Amino acid sequence: MNSLALRISYADTDQMGMVYYANYLDFFERGRTELLREIGLEYKAIEERGFYFPVIHAECKYISPAKYDHIITIETNISEVTAASITCSYEVKCHEKLLVIGKTKHPFVNKELKPVRFPKDIKDVLEKNLEK
Amino acid sequence: MNSLALRISYADTDQMGMVYYANYLDFFERGRTELLREIGLEYKAIEERGFYFPVIHAECKYISPAKYDHIITIETNISEVTAASITCSYEVKCHEKLLVIGKTKHPFVNKELKPVRFPKDIKDVLEKNLEK
Amino acid sequence: MNSLALRISYADTDQMGMVYYANYLDFFERGRTELLREIGLEYKAIEERGFYFPVIHAECKYISPAKYDHIITIETNISEVTAASITCSYEVKCHEKLLVIGKTKHPFVNKELKPVRFPKDIKDVLEKNLEK
Amino acid sequence: MNSLALRISYADTDQMGMVYYANYLDFFERGRTELLREIGLEYKAIEERGFYFPVIHAECKYISPAKYDHIITIETNISEVTAASITCSYEVKCHEKLLVIGKTKHPFVNKELKPVRFPKDIKDVLEKNLEK
Repeated sequence: MNSLALRISYADTDQMGMVYYANYLDFFERGRTELLREIGLEYKAIEERGFYFPVIHAECKYISPAKYDHIITIETNISEVTAASITCSYEVKCHEKLLVIGKTKHPFVNKELKPVRFPKDIKDVLEKNLEK
Repeated sequence: MNSLALRISYADTDQMGMVYYANYLDFFERGRTELLREIGLEYKAIEERGFYFPVIHAECKYISPAKYDHIITIETNISEVTAASITCSYEVKCHEKLLVIGKTKHPFVNKELKPVRFPKDIKDVLEKNLEK
Repeated sequence: MNSLALRISYADTDQMGMVYYANYLDFFERGRTELLREIGLEYKAIEERGFYFPVIHAECKYISPAKYDHIITIETNISEVTAASITCSYEVKCHEKLLVIGKTKHPFVNKELKPVRFPKDIKDVLEKNLEK
Repeated sequence: MNSLALRISYADTDQMGMVYYANYLDFFERGRTELLREIGLEYKAIEERGFYFPVIHAECKYISPAKYDHIITIETNISEVTAASITCSYEVKCHEKLLVIGKTKHPFVNKELKPVRFPKDIKDVLEKNLEK
């Protein structure tokens, strides 16, 4: 599990005085990137090997709004690993209060965007870091 | 059903050369706003009456990427109406090709963000425009 | 001169209830793209020839705020053409009221991002469409 | 002078493989907020007193692009203080390489968005922290 802290900026807010709903998907991406880095699978290095993790499904449940200048934490886990995809799950919190939960699913694809099976080294790391 | 056409800008893209996944939620909002306007429930007027439609759930299935300068259409429907919430569903297309489908759920709330039942005039319009 | 109309979305606003200041640069890009298309220099086609118009300078003067659901118009002009760059100027209006004025400067570069002189066909079109 | 480090996300990039030009204004806002916090003028507290710092002018010179996953630093200074406005200046760097420089001007306004003179306590702090 990776935990990433972020400060909410004015740019993140909308006229209801809370974070605009699409922005949580940006926050998820930041959490996902740090999780991958933490387990030794820097996403930039994956791209340099010619592979990508596009998104095929995203889901978000909004419980309580994040507001300007709050420091939120994004807790990211790998919740599923298949032969050629991962699912990440997210909890966004502010001072232990749960704000948003989400999930994203990512096939593993090559430069032609064709799904491919994970190389063994990557598969091993992902499975080792699968959420218990 | 409302159909809204949008041109993809450079700002919408990411370094994979396609629309960044969070941006579809912005497109959904634009579709939703135009659907409400079309059925006579301009969202700005709803806000002026002291009511809001925040989002409590959003879901997105990505089938094929939209790219720079494409003209996409967002087809928006009201797929469910309860006593105090609506669910909208979306199909994003480019030249009849389906790119993304999505769904968002919105409780009806007052200024204190408390869920409230729809006034009869609003309820009637929503139900009349429920997707068959 | 190209004139492009855009509807302000919730995503564009911030908690002051007006359009977030960075978003006008997105609007400028949309105006610039439509201006180029109008004069026969579709930006996508320029990229396909291996050239780009990155931005080296941008400036924005904010006079009056655009608000949610407003329809704004972006009036874009080519205000300067040199051997290897253009400058565009912008006026953002709402019902004839001037909201924002801006300017962006773009060198003409190749795939290695090196500045190059305009091919004659492009230069001719740009000069013919220089703002009087 | 405040120095703030930020990691470039996928959301920040465009299809040229670099940070989209409007996003630097978001980065400037983040730097500005941290500078104000550092000198004891938390922006949220200023808003709670009924004052705002909208933007009336912004300028950006792009020297070299920031790219995905880079850690950039935003160095923010107060470069001018008048009776009722401040000007901030920014340098965005990556490993000591200068990427972008910018400037933003902010009148001090009340809830009706009317410019007002700074209260003495705020003026004193701003002047004490004016860039030498």
